[in-house]
Amino acid sequence: MTYCVALKLNAGLVFASDSRTNAGVDQIASFKKMRTFRNPGDRVIVILSSGNLSVTQNATNLVEQQGRQADKSNIWNVPSMFDVAGLLGGCLREVTHRDRPHLQASNIDVGATFIVGGQIAGEAPRLFMVYSEGNFIEASDNTPFFQIGETKYGKPIIDRMIRPETSLNEAIKCVLVSFDSTMRSNVSVGMPIDIICYDTNSLELGTEQSLAEGDEYFSQISSLWSEGLRGVFASLPEPHWVCPAVHDPSTDISPPITEPPIS
Amino acid sequence: MTYCVALKLNAGLVFASDSRTNAGVDQIASFKKMRTFRNPGDRVIVILSSGNLSVTQNATNLVEQQGRQADKSNIWNVPSMFDVAGLLGGCLREVTHRDRPHLQASNIDVGATFIVGGQIAGEAPRLFMVYSEGNFIEASDNTPFFQIGETKYGKPIIDRMIRPETSLNEAIKCVLVSFDSTMRSNVSVGMPIDIICYDTNSLELGTEQSLAEGDEYFSQISSLWSEGLRGVFASLPEPHWVCPAVHDPSTDISPPITEPPIS
Repeated sequence: MTYCVALKLNAGLVFASDSRTNAGVDQIASFKKMRTFRNPGDRVIVILSSGNLSVTQNATNLVEQQGRQADKSNIWNVPSMFDVAGLLGGCLREVTHRDRPHLQASNIDVGATFIVGGQIAGEAPRLFMVYSEGNFIEASDNTPFFQIGETKYGKPIIDRMIRPETSLNEAIKCVLVSFDSTMRSNVSVGMPIDIICYDTNSLELGTEQSLAEGDEYFSQISSLWSEGLRGVFASLPEPHWVCPAVHDPSTDISPPITEPPIS
Repeated sequence: MTYCVALKLNAGLVFASDSRTNAGVDQIASFKKMRTFRNPGDRVIVILSSGNLSVTQNATNLVEQQGRQADKSNIWNVPSMFDVAGLLGGCLREVTHRDRPHLQASNIDVGATFIVGGQIAGEAPRLFMVYSEGNFIEASDNTPFFQIGETKYGKPIIDRMIRPETSLNEAIKCVLVSFDSTMRSNVSVGMPIDIICYDTNSLELGTEQSLAEGDEYFSQISSLWSEGLRGVFASLPEPHWVCPAVHDPSTDISPPITEPPIS
């Protein structure tokens, strides 16, 4: 499995990905799922990937390879992030088309999903999600984030905390809490967590961080969050109803409680 | 969709279920997914259901109907909760066998899952999950809870908070926080939330609560939890690295950041 998340905030973009891949529980390895393309002052682009590793690697390699053909539209010369998402979707379709019959013959899932975001000089930062079919959607202020892979465990905290006006530092904390929740509930998501930030209009990427197993900051976030939750939890008011069993038939709700037949 | 959860604690059992059912987003209704069977002093049994509504209703109705045939093994006379889970699994198989061809002909999912728990005089409280195939598993101290339906959003808080020694009141709070997280992230899970507690060895059910939209206690839990999380979140330490973009190539991690080809 995989967990990747990217946020589009007024202050910039945040990208994070785990590194665990597996082909069955007996074949687990660590692979980077984040790929960055940068031409400072002109464009910075980050791709996060989830799904079949050969398909995602092939599709991003194809994007990179096309980038060497300067006479054609490629990731280094297209004028918008919309075009970049289209290029990536196209490469994904090419790989999928080529590999699907062979993978399906062995009942292997060919599915692969990407998040791609960044900024190209002349337009604002943008964030897209590319589906396995190669079609794609763009993040908006209403939903300023995308997740791929094992998305559900880590979603509630993002739903609660992330707004377009959230700062990059707050966003990083939120992303790490989201990873913490995901890794507690799904062992197939694992460290290191790669994380990178982008400041709106800087046209230069921040330093990439790779938080490995035992990373001090991540451990601190994880344990403080856990303690904090316990504190909040303990402070919640007790239920107003009496929990120990004193059954009061006058409060029964339909359908009525079933009782044994009179014999 | 559905969200149901049941906990098996030293102090007793807690069962909770939402009430939203839908056949497509344009056909949403409210149905109770909790059914209780009680013969005070002898046995109390609670069934929570998820999946195809006709299948779950038919299976529990069959269990209830068999209970009127006193000369046969039924929910009122079997000596153990293990037998009750087996009866429910058998009824589910009967309904599924009868309806599957007809539902599949219309591409309708026949899947249905149950949680069933309670206590029968002579043994300790027990909790089971019955899969759509009619087979079943029992909760243990290692994993003292089961969830069915939309299980993921609400799982992290249960993973963090629930231990066999958790009190019933703490467990109720945890269950409500779990529902709050689920309902924020999935609109197909909705109020009222039915909740019922069982005190170990009481052989009598507590009063059933139905928390409807706008319920004061639930709203209080929901807003205090949200505020509390924000407080904990704000107190988390800032990342130790500088987020704004100052790219330091010496810290780059392989595979290297891709730069445009030199033309």
